[in-house]
Amino acid sequence: MNALFEKLDRRLTGIRLYGIAPPKQASDAERLREIAAQHVARLRLLAPDGLVVYDIQDEPGRSGEARPFPFLPTVDPEIYAHDTLAELAIPKIVYRCVGAQPRDVFSSWLDEVRSTPDRRLGVFVGAPRGRSHSPGLLLNEAYALARAAANLVVGGIAIAERHAAKADEQQRMLAKQDSGCRFFITQSVYDAAATKSLLSDYALSLQASGRSPAPVVLTFSPCGSLKTLELMKWLGISFPRWLENELRHSTDTLERSIALCESVFSDVQDYAREKRLPIGINVESVSIRKSEIDASVELYRRLSSRLAK
Amino acid sequence: MNALFEKLDRRLTGIRLYGIAPPKQASDAERLREIAAQHVARLRLLAPDGLVVYDIQDEPGRSGEARPFPFLPTVDPEIYAHDTLAELAIPKIVYRCVGAQPRDVFSSWLDEVRSTPDRRLGVFVGAPRGRSHSPGLLLNEAYALARAAANLVVGGIAIAERHAAKADEQQRMLAKQDSGCRFFITQSVYDAAATKSLLSDYALSLQASGRSPAPVVLTFSPCGSLKTLELMKWLGISFPRWLENELRHSTDTLERSIALCESVFSDVQDYAREKRLPIGINVESVSIRKSEIDASVELYRRLSSRLAK
Repeated sequence: MNALFEKLDRRLTGIRLYGIAPPKQASDAERLREIAAQHVARLRLLAPDGLVVYDIQDEPGRSGEARPFPFLPTVDPEIYAHDTLAELAIPKIVYRCVGAQPRDVFSSWLDEVRSTPDRRLGVFVGAPRGRSHSPGLLLNEAYALARAAANLVVGGIAIAERHAAKADEQQRMLAKQDSGCRFFITQSVYDAAATKSLLSDYALSLQASGRSPAPVVLTFSPCGSLKTLELMKWLGISFPRWLENELRHSTDTLERSIALCESVFSDVQDYAREKRLPIGINVESVSIRKSEIDASVELYRRLSSRLAK
Repeated sequence: MNALFEKLDRRLTGIRLYGIAPPKQASDAERLREIAAQHVARLRLLAPDGLVVYDIQDEPGRSGEARPFPFLPTVDPEIYAHDTLAELAIPKIVYRCVGAQPRDVFSSWLDEVRSTPDRRLGVFVGAPRGRSHSPGLLLNEAYALARAAANLVVGGIAIAERHAAKADEQQRMLAKQDSGCRFFITQSVYDAAATKSLLSDYALSLQASGRSPAPVVLTFSPCGSLKTLELMKWLGISFPRWLENELRHSTDTLERSIALCESVFSDVQDYAREKRLPIGINVESVSIRKSEIDASVELYRRLSSRLAK
């Protein structure tokens, strides 16, 4: 059995993922092949348990501030994961922004999933902020429909920053589990305390309701410049002030961010172990600069090695 | 030279203080002697570099919520420190709420300080919240007047929680240093990230202005019950949610709080060392329950030993 499915089915700690965004739609065919070849090479090198492919949506309502990088539509993540990267024989966890697409699109995708012999993995995300009147499905509807595809393993997102503001993320996680969600993926973790607070309330809620934990995959991304820092903050990632100062005033922001990610991970790992919560890692680069992509490879290696301890 | 004055004069790391509140005014003479005898015994046992004596004020405006413990006026901290505990031959750092007393009271106290042969130590605190129209001095006026007493070493308070809300506490610290403040004492530290954020901005401001750091004495207090936790929160002490959960759900809240204080201290100590900021410790019990006082003795020992490393 594949390592990822085994870890999911047995609710084990140790899931190791690497995350990418699909190439821009505007890329020409040659550029697309080039990017895909780079992704294949990088993933063969890292050999993670699975590949995460994001569904990047424009989010006009995310914050009052302008997006630090322009939004450019990407190739469909499902097509990129399963067709373009078909030669890459590892499980793909494809994000699907169910709130942004009509019911019939979702249903025909489910039919397609059902018709494939393999197990498939997806992470459902609700409507992007600023699009509350979008034509898409509610998260609950998507989970309910997805039960028809027995070979589909569904995950959900868990956001420590939302928990810091609303203090009910653990309830969302439990409701998602009840709807069939088998694992969670966070956004990039730079705030150890916020993440421990989410895990703490999650562990207490599980205990109170006699339920078992689903693996929580913690996402980490290097930060090599102030521009990347601004993008991450715009995306809603929380940075403790001292840590943001470290990045802003470091002579080597990128290496500093890797070291900080390692120490944040160790802190959260110790805590999760104490609470007997299975965790995993997912490493991505939010930037497409080569130095930051290389740094994500290095970060993946360092966190994998810590995760195995 | 006394260890405390040497550490202050040379801006060294390693100041070790123990903090107490004076007994209630309502205590009869016998009870007062009993409390003083216990204080003397405890402090001889611990032998800290100095004793902190607080100036407890009623703070009707502190929060919308009722004070968890009733406010009872205490013996004057100056009298308690220097007269009642005269036999205790260690430096006393006496808090003085300058905002709560008229100028002539402050001036005659300064005259008295000037007339003593020894060096004296004080920490000035502004008007208590909810008393903005109090008859007392502004903090700046008090610092200015205090320069007349050359044998008085003045410290100030530094509040990480205020920094988290207003992001300007490092500027207050620098202004206080310019006014003659030679060291800082925090309130109880349970939020490592907030404290590191304050130290980070303080270090950056010192660097930008070419000034030297004053020792920052970090206060720690055990928490043995939910009632003590509520009092601490009412006093404005910040608890990360996961840490508060740990205290609320522990089978031994008191021992858990000591272990958590140790780990918070280690985290902040590592950071301060990296930033070359001199730090110290101050241990107190905000509660008068025997178990929590005993725990403060144990906590003082454990933190002293870590501080020496």
